[in-house]
Amino acid sequence: MTPPPARIGATLDEIDTPALVVDLDAFERNLRKLADFARKAGVRLRPHAKTHKCPAIALKQIALGAVGQCCQKVGEAEVLVRGGVKDILVSNEVVGLHKLRRLAALAKDATVALCFDAAEQVEATGAVARDFGVQLGALVEIEVGMQRCGVPPGEPALALARLITKTPGLKFRGLQAYHGTAQHLPSVDEREKAIQTAAVAVRQTVDLLRQKGVACELVTGAGTGTHQFEAASGLWNELQAGSYVFMDTDYARIGGSNGNRFAEFEHSLFVLATVMSVPAAERAIVDAGLKSYSAEKGPPWVHGLADVETVGVSDEHAKLKLGPTAKPLRRGDKVMLIPGHCDPTVNLHDWYVGIRAGRVEALWPIAARGAST
Amino acid sequence: MTPPPARIGATLDEIDTPALVVDLDAFERNLRKLADFARKAGVRLRPHAKTHKCPAIALKQIALGAVGQCCQKVGEAEVLVRGGVKDILVSNEVVGLHKLRRLAALAKDATVALCFDAAEQVEATGAVARDFGVQLGALVEIEVGMQRCGVPPGEPALALARLITKTPGLKFRGLQAYHGTAQHLPSVDEREKAIQTAAVAVRQTVDLLRQKGVACELVTGAGTGTHQFEAASGLWNELQAGSYVFMDTDYARIGGSNGNRFAEFEHSLFVLATVMSVPAAERAIVDAGLKSYSAEKGPPWVHGLADVETVGVSDEHAKLKLGPTAKPLRRGDKVMLIPGHCDPTVNLHDWYVGIRAGRVEALWPIAARGAST
Repeated sequence: MTPPPARIGATLDEIDTPALVVDLDAFERNLRKLADFARKAGVRLRPHAKTHKCPAIALKQIALGAVGQCCQKVGEAEVLVRGGVKDILVSNEVVGLHKLRRLAALAKDATVALCFDAAEQVEATGAVARDFGVQLGALVEIEVGMQRCGVPPGEPALALARLITKTPGLKFRGLQAYHGTAQHLPSVDEREKAIQTAAVAVRQTVDLLRQKGVACELVTGAGTGTHQFEAASGLWNELQAGSYVFMDTDYARIGGSNGNRFAEFEHSLFVLATVMSVPAAERAIVDAGLKSYSAEKGPPWVHGLADVETVGVSDEHAKLKLGPTAKPLRRGDKVMLIPGHCDPTVNLHDWYVGIRAGRVEALWPIAARGAST
Repeated sequence: MTPPPARIGATLDEIDTPALVVDLDAFERNLRKLADFARKAGVRLRPHAKTHKCPAIALKQIALGAVGQCCQKVGEAEVLVRGGVKDILVSNEVVGLHKLRRLAALAKDATVALCFDAAEQVEATGAVARDFGVQLGALVEIEVGMQRCGVPPGEPALALARLITKTPGLKFRGLQAYHGTAQHLPSVDEREKAIQTAAVAVRQTVDLLRQKGVACELVTGAGTGTHQFEAASGLWNELQAGSYVFMDTDYARIGGSNGNRFAEFEHSLFVLATVMSVPAAERAIVDAGLKSYSAEKGPPWVHGLADVETVGVSDEHAKLKLGPTAKPLRRGDKVMLIPGHCDPTVNLHDWYVGIRAGRVEALWPIAARGAST
């Protein structure tokens, strides 16, 4: 783990760059906005820790009413439980004896659930849970449009749920129904339609489980781009949004309501960089590249500087182009970059540097950075 | 730092995934091949640690004749010096008092040099070196085609070199002349032409320095894609190649000699993943996504499996498409992925898992992972 890039109380200029900076005011507004939304909608909120990878943030979400956290990896679950989170859903399949043992061990200290899309995994996981003397929550993941993991809705989901109910060591909790590819569809209408289609699959499965007497406590899923549709469906009763805490350019590019851009939540996450070279008036080079932000969704945006854009990205540099109306940049100037994709950007850093009113107020370790197993 | 994903002696199946795996035989052949090339060409080899970020690998390169290491960041230099490397060039500009102090402190334990493209940086760095009672090597970076940092060749480079020679605390070592965008030009001819153009800029500058009586000990630069041209130029006398140790799909896609693909070096770096779901015969999902490899150069290639390709990448998953002639994949099967871009992929992992003959033989900490300041 690298040392923190600043000390509490430092000014922006004193932060060693590149650094992952959180605008605490914007971040807190995002946290409260979705917490309030979920409360009013009458659905549970289980924010996704795959975005922030940080127990300090998880505990803030829980303090505002979240029921716990979800995550994608056993390694993330380990960090969250060590950090004080008491209720974890691994919203993913877990394959391999060693990983299952690590998850079962965690169930000694927390409520732990995971997802299934195959009978052999149900059997293997039940055996490990019994071996460790614990009970693991079990959800059936159904395919609702993403074409990734998951069993088809209806009969195959019922069969797997029944197998779980008969497997000692496991407790059937409900359905995992997440439509990942719907999150970034360009228009609100497209996103709403995708979730309406997903809802058909969910309703069919929920109805079948009810008819057959299999109690389905939870239908969990949704992300930042579609959460309002799952919440309004009357089917999902738990939301798994993650990116809402930070936002990124990939979300900022999709459409919102009334023909505007999607702006339900604010950009609160920035990569702070320093101008290290100004070889020409229209070109400035900053000290943050592919090792400080993920660029598979395009280069980062420059925040708060008119007529300046990122035109090139390399491993340790970004090239900024200053247009005719841009204010000149000088060597040593700080620049805030908005990453294209927040989750893999966070996973590059060891520390959040929380700032308020231009000063460092928080240093939160990204304790689950790299926890990908 | 995450725990190592395997123990020495483990088989491939026992490695917890995703894991960053090095084929030690291929890796060692790559190391020897470039070391032999540099020796025969009569040029110094200073491999780039920005690729591997690992003192254990640096020391192997030095044992084969490399004069030291180069790196892009002060944080990398700190890790290398702590790991036993005695001669470091930061092949980059270093801006900011704190970073300069960190670099000067390292010069107590190692020979340390850095690059300049501005007079104000020469003055600031000289002052810090004197404050710490050390001497820092200083190279003038000249622009040779990449349009990133660097002063123009000729007079501006001479002026900066003269300023360095007059600045106590600094010792003028020569020219940094790296053409980054030439490395991945599609054909050998294009790469050769780009370096010929760069050579014009270098020759002009070297000649001018000589005429004016400024001794220029080093001309350093070159990368994996063009190293043979710099070596043959009679101008460059130090090569900075980095990616040759591992290779990636971005290098594998460029053209080599005789109309073939570039194959000077072998793929030795892989992300080992596990099949976690097989929802359909033609689709398998593995447990490694954007947090385990960099994808801005495209999705990873599947190694050693005929008619299987990566068709989708998300944060923690990759979707594989099995064509009609592919061997079926089963849940739990291991898959080796070749990353699109090795440097930012390495920067996601804490450990190299070195394998030979199917067993884990080495666990090397990627000690400079995340060392971006």
